[in-house]
Amino acid sequence: MKGLLSWWEGLCKGSAILRFVDYNLRGIGQVMFQDNPLSGLLFFIAIGWGSFVSGMPQVAIGGLVAVIVGTLTAQWLRVDAAGLAAGLYGYNAYLIGLTFGTFLGLSPMWWIYVALAGAVTVPVTLGIANVFKGWGVAALTAPFVLTAWLFLLATYAFSAIEGSGLPMAAEVVAIDPAAANPLALGDFFVGILKSITQVFLKASVVAALLLLAGLAVNSPAAAAFAVGGAVVAVATAHALGAESDLITGGLMGFSPVLTAVALGAVFYKPGVRVAVYALVATVFTVVVQGALNVVVAPFGIPTLTAPFVLASWFFLLPRQHFEQA
Amino acid sequence: MKGLLSWWEGLCKGSAILRFVDYNLRGIGQVMFQDNPLSGLLFFIAIGWGSFVSGMPQVAIGGLVAVIVGTLTAQWLRVDAAGLAAGLYGYNAYLIGLTFGTFLGLSPMWWIYVALAGAVTVPVTLGIANVFKGWGVAALTAPFVLTAWLFLLATYAFSAIEGSGLPMAAEVVAIDPAAANPLALGDFFVGILKSITQVFLKASVVAALLLLAGLAVNSPAAAAFAVGGAVVAVATAHALGAESDLITGGLMGFSPVLTAVALGAVFYKPGVRVAVYALVATVFTVVVQGALNVVVAPFGIPTLTAPFVLASWFFLLPRQHFEQA
Amino acid sequence: MKGLLSWWEGLCKGSAILRFVDYNLRGIGQVMFQDNPLSGLLFFIAIGWGSFVSGMPQVAIGGLVAVIVGTLTAQWLRVDAAGLAAGLYGYNAYLIGLTFGTFLGLSPMWWIYVALAGAVTVPVTLGIANVFKGWGVAALTAPFVLTAWLFLLATYAFSAIEGSGLPMAAEVVAIDPAAANPLALGDFFVGILKSITQVFLKASVVAALLLLAGLAVNSPAAAAFAVGGAVVAVATAHALGAESDLITGGLMGFSPVLTAVALGAVFYKPGVRVAVYALVATVFTVVVQGALNVVVAPFGIPTLTAPFVLASWFFLLPRQHFEQA
Repeated sequence: MKGLLSWWEGLCKGSAILRFVDYNLRGIGQVMFQDNPLSGLLFFIAIGWGSFVSGMPQVAIGGLVAVIVGTLTAQWLRVDAAGLAAGLYGYNAYLIGLTFGTFLGLSPMWWIYVALAGAVTVPVTLGIANVFKGWGVAALTAPFVLTAWLFLLATYAFSAIEGSGLPMAAEVVAIDPAAANPLALGDFFVGILKSITQVFLKASVVAALLLLAGLAVNSPAAAAFAVGGAVVAVATAHALGAESDLITGGLMGFSPVLTAVALGAVFYKPGVRVAVYALVATVFTVVVQGALNVVVAPFGIPTLTAPFVLASWFFLLPRQHFEQA
Repeated sequence: MKGLLSWWEGLCKGSAILRFVDYNLRGIGQVMFQDNPLSGLLFFIAIGWGSFVSGMPQVAIGGLVAVIVGTLTAQWLRVDAAGLAAGLYGYNAYLIGLTFGTFLGLSPMWWIYVALAGAVTVPVTLGIANVFKGWGVAALTAPFVLTAWLFLLATYAFSAIEGSGLPMAAEVVAIDPAAANPLALGDFFVGILKSITQVFLKASVVAALLLLAGLAVNSPAAAAFAVGGAVVAVATAHALGAESDLITGGLMGFSPVLTAVALGAVFYKPGVRVAVYALVATVFTVVVQGALNVVVAPFGIPTLTAPFVLASWFFLLPRQHFEQA
Repeated sequence: MKGLLSWWEGLCKGSAILRFVDYNLRGIGQVMFQDNPLSGLLFFIAIGWGSFVSGMPQVAIGGLVAVIVGTLTAQWLRVDAAGLAAGLYGYNAYLIGLTFGTFLGLSPMWWIYVALAGAVTVPVTLGIANVFKGWGVAALTAPFVLTAWLFLLATYAFSAIEGSGLPMAAEVVAIDPAAANPLALGDFFVGILKSITQVFLKASVVAALLLLAGLAVNSPAAAAFAVGGAVVAVATAHALGAESDLITGGLMGFSPVLTAVALGAVFYKPGVRVAVYALVATVFTVVVQGALNVVVAPFGIPTLTAPFVLASWFFLLPRQHFEQA
């Protein structure tokens, strides 16, 4: 694996075009914190697979367009070379494309919407980084969440963009306990795998395995925490009596998965104390997912990865109490 | 009083268990900014009284469980010794327990919810402290408000937790002027006393007198500003035509009481200028209480002390214009 | 023009009263970033005109009362002399008065509401400045927006203040495409001019010309970016299929106009790169206006200039990537 990476990095040195491809692949890899073009490629294939078999190629294509626009915008804005090369200006844009492909209907204006929002993630990323620099905490996917929420909310005000895939705005009501039926064991496993793919807005078991491969090639610990986080999330959500269909569809678990990976294998030096802390944070993220499902209901938008961002910020800000990775 | 405190502090030096009790009592005292175990004990008795006579012992018991979990979590996270000894890692957790006892139905999961949320207040406190350290302003009860809101909102998504005491989610409509009838003088006095106890989520006249005693033993100025703040809040709320039942129940006044104590007797050096400033801030907090009642209505949750936090931050952030206490 | 200004500044040196008038005129000028008493006077006349011809003199009078209260409060709080002299403690209060005149019914309590909120903008301004000082970005009209939102929301809870001009709280629903009919050319021009006056909450063509004159006497570039921003905003809003009546009334364009002026002619050193950046930010502000229209709908309040504040912060925070003006 290392030899393959060295060979690719050698090729990139000699070609501006390959370097640009490399930035974008690493940008896709950074959706799950992996600064590795092979991880990015596997993620890209996973999403492509999930996207085409579900008859929605615009998800994968939107992601590709947006990540390219994001990287070009970052170059035009003359961002720091190290961040650009690590893909830090690509992952938020990539998620924008996946999101608009998933929730918005295709139209000529859709392409402009994808490109504009992809570009906007870059100043938003720079702005949040400026705000957060004194606190030693990363922006995570906050630029994606904020930008996407604004563009999705605006679809209700604009008739040239069709929010055909968005949830209906709804009043806040308590869950019907019948919706939290106990599940078959098979559903439990499906929920775990789909919790991993929903990080990329897809519910596909094949894609889950490709995503785990993409994690494992760069960081076996990240892959382990992804699976562990998904198990904890699905078990916690069932214990709390969340809606079974949401859990099995991966929709209660994708943010906890990101929290588990971020705290357990990326930002802190792994160890027993950190694992316990990551466990509590992962359980807490399930609660935050439930809470934000309620908060966004009247506005007709999805939570995206906001529960991950919020819960992880709370657990990353006291960073002086743990050794950093 | 001073002799009693010295005797207790002497005892604590010799016993880890008594020191732990001391941390927790000071944590309860910090709900109204008093770093004094006797204040904490009187507050604890006041809440216990209000809780048992109203047939809801789970309020006092929840508070006790949560403050202990909060203190233990702080020790596990190796927080600063001075903050721990001053009870700064206990008051947010204590309020969590009172809140869940008040708004949520008892069940096995309730205990886990109390303990988990109590523990989560500690990283949230550390995180907010990290963010605020450059601005010279305290986190106040923000860790409690944010954590409690998330756990309360999530009850709508989870069938294993019953939000039986939560307000119904409601559309925003203007108040019926008939609800703002002029009141009898007796109601006015009841409103003042209950504005003080609602700081601890209880409406009880006996508890109010115990709370004032708890303030007075450590800071007569704090007790005076609590009463003065309550008078100003009740008078302002009536003048603005707020709902009489809310005012008499103390629900328009508890945040203004905290603002009055915080600005008038805790964070700034007392004086005429500071008193005028605290008066304006207290009146403003009544407006913020009205505003946030409207904001939370569609989400079916109470404001908790968010009006105090928001208004006091606005009036504490320009701290360089006043001498600090 | 320069001679006139020098003569006035000479007069002000000799008279505390004229200096006070000067602070307030500059405060009005700062609504569109102009530290110039003549700009402020022209803005004041424009608003007075729009206010009286529409039969709502309370708009202009409320603005006058509030800006005076704001300046007096700033003096009482001993703010920095340079900021006071530049009108930086006046513009938020002035906008409060215009807003309350526009949305709230007259009553004795209305005057207290205007004065209290005008005073509150000053600590809020100081507080936000304290928070933002490390990031090198201005508070813009955020103190106005936050203070006004709180006071407007509270009118639903208070029967002594009548929110007669506020929008009804409404569920979030998608726009009816029929509301986005193509427009006559005349409507297009009206929309451009009213986008400029709606910065001051007025829809008046005469006022627009006076406002542009007020900009031009201090900064021809600001006037040019205001017109250019309005053209871009109206064209973008139509292309996205926003509601025609909103666009023609100037309600989709006033925040983008402020963004265009702030980015193109105030905070960055003008140039081609900055102009492109300001263009993207202006288009983005139209999307944010659409989004925030949806967000505020359930709460029955207007967006005010929040879309400008939010979008401009995102595009001003990465300031190290452009030369500052």
